[in-house]
Amino acid sequence: MVYTAKKWIYARAFGGEPKLDNFCLEEEIMPDIREGEFLAKAEYLSVDPYMRIYILSYPIGSVMIGGQIAQVLESKHPEFPVGAYVFGQFGWRTYAICNPTGIATRKPYVLPDFGVLPRSLGIGTLGTVGNSAYFGFLEVCRPKSGETVVVSGAAGAVGNIVGQIGKIKGCKVIGLAGSDVKCRWLEEIGFDYAINYKTTDIGEELLKAAPEGVDCYFDNVGGEISAIVKKQMRHFGRIACCGTISMYNGSPIQVEDPQRDFVSKQLVQEGFSVHRWTDRWFEGIEQNLKWINEGNLKYRETITEGFENMPLAFIEMMKGGNIGKAIVAVE
Amino acid sequence: MVYTAKKWIYARAFGGEPKLDNFCLEEEIMPDIREGEFLAKAEYLSVDPYMRIYILSYPIGSVMIGGQIAQVLESKHPEFPVGAYVFGQFGWRTYAICNPTGIATRKPYVLPDFGVLPRSLGIGTLGTVGNSAYFGFLEVCRPKSGETVVVSGAAGAVGNIVGQIGKIKGCKVIGLAGSDVKCRWLEEIGFDYAINYKTTDIGEELLKAAPEGVDCYFDNVGGEISAIVKKQMRHFGRIACCGTISMYNGSPIQVEDPQRDFVSKQLVQEGFSVHRWTDRWFEGIEQNLKWINEGNLKYRETITEGFENMPLAFIEMMKGGNIGKAIVAVE
Repeated sequence: MVYTAKKWIYARAFGGEPKLDNFCLEEEIMPDIREGEFLAKAEYLSVDPYMRIYILSYPIGSVMIGGQIAQVLESKHPEFPVGAYVFGQFGWRTYAICNPTGIATRKPYVLPDFGVLPRSLGIGTLGTVGNSAYFGFLEVCRPKSGETVVVSGAAGAVGNIVGQIGKIKGCKVIGLAGSDVKCRWLEEIGFDYAINYKTTDIGEELLKAAPEGVDCYFDNVGGEISAIVKKQMRHFGRIACCGTISMYNGSPIQVEDPQRDFVSKQLVQEGFSVHRWTDRWFEGIEQNLKWINEGNLKYRETITEGFENMPLAFIEMMKGGNIGKAIVAVE
Repeated sequence: MVYTAKKWIYARAFGGEPKLDNFCLEEEIMPDIREGEFLAKAEYLSVDPYMRIYILSYPIGSVMIGGQIAQVLESKHPEFPVGAYVFGQFGWRTYAICNPTGIATRKPYVLPDFGVLPRSLGIGTLGTVGNSAYFGFLEVCRPKSGETVVVSGAAGAVGNIVGQIGKIKGCKVIGLAGSDVKCRWLEEIGFDYAINYKTTDIGEELLKAAPEGVDCYFDNVGGEISAIVKKQMRHFGRIACCGTISMYNGSPIQVEDPQRDFVSKQLVQEGFSVHRWTDRWFEGIEQNLKWINEGNLKYRETITEGFENMPLAFIEMMKGGNIGKAIVAVE
């Protein structure tokens, strides 16, 4: 049997919002499968914001990247038998040939049994999207019952799930979304508050919805919205950066987006006060003392003599005039 | 015995760099101590960058805040006997009366035995400063042997200790400091590289010193220097925000300093990719499936029919046209 695949090519470089002429539809006659391969026919394909920026790493003319639910039509791989439905990163194409053995990350897999639920959930709540919400929220935000959670892009694929898991975990959940229809839906599925960021003052609305401040912020959008939310974080708040959609349509050169680095490199930034470790205080002193005595830790002091010179010592220290610890000896 | 304390008053509000006329020296005759109190005479006083911003929360006319090493001269508290040397947050004053019982945080304590080492270390490497390095670096950065560590404000009180602990832990350590004299000292005490941020291109020098990128960034300064370092972080890098000294002399209204919030509120920001949890993938799917079946997790899809409409579905999704997961059904 000969299959002719349709495939969408990334034909012209994105500039700003994606447009139809960035894409070009082509056809490809599928070759015969070889040992270890299977051929699958797409049933549902995923479109996700990450595609807008990830495709930039590929040359013009590449097939658009993305995941799909597909049914195996021919197989020479025992784990992917004919008839099985699989999830795979096959790109924007109607037929794909895959050798799972050669794939190191994001391997294809046969869909688990969803019971009566639609298979399309395999690219949604029961796939990468649902797992982004499940792991990203629970492992990075570590929400506790009674805490306040804010989700940006809340009516999007990942955001709505995060909010619902927040409710399951006993949190107060506030969603930010871009239309009243979206906000109404968020309230229907259990969000305590939904804020339309296009028509309201987010800072003010957030202050009303969460006068106690925000413990967990699950961020899909980055940019200005996130700057506003971050100002209302409580002590020891946790921010999970899942994406920075609000910046994706900008040119990589024009737009500085430090938060994109946080996502792509999975960075952690943490502020701290030393007084968090009050109960281990003398452990710290004893260890540093030991290191000094062993010769592994040097100390240096910039000593200003005379209590009357304290302001001077302070002024000089603020200018970087000291090396090591700046101290004042009383007499 | 009557003691007359000298004390430095925060007399005029800071604007930009601290100047001598921000301070005013006053005297105070110390009253008799009461039950539970002790009176101590300052020997060494600490001057630290945090004072520049923390004093802003106090009214003009307050005694400047800060820690000191002091000797107990009179005591009605059994844990602080006459003759003992203590560390306490007594402010910029030569004599202080303290009732330790009434202090909830940052309680005074009798200095541990430093052996032959100078007592002044009690406000340096063997006090708050050393503990900021010890706990902040080890607990927040979690350095591993062989990793690359960058420290800003490296010749300062905390920074030089962080770098040395980095060496003790088997890391490659790079320090940023503001003069060649400071840089030379950093190399003397074991830093692998020291970069003078005032005379070189930090980004370029860092690329030479750490072509493999930065695993741990211990940040004392914030601002532009930190923006440059953060661009050279490696995957799963950790950034410990100890202070934002470079911004302290700015007016709180003029200068946006989101990182100061990270320090004062001890926030955590973490980027993630869901593929970090590949080995727990089906746990996520099974849990979400369970929640759907229990009625606790709703799903919604925005389905576009027809493979030929994929670009359109993508374009609409990027504009926020979808609610829930955007998917394309092939036929």
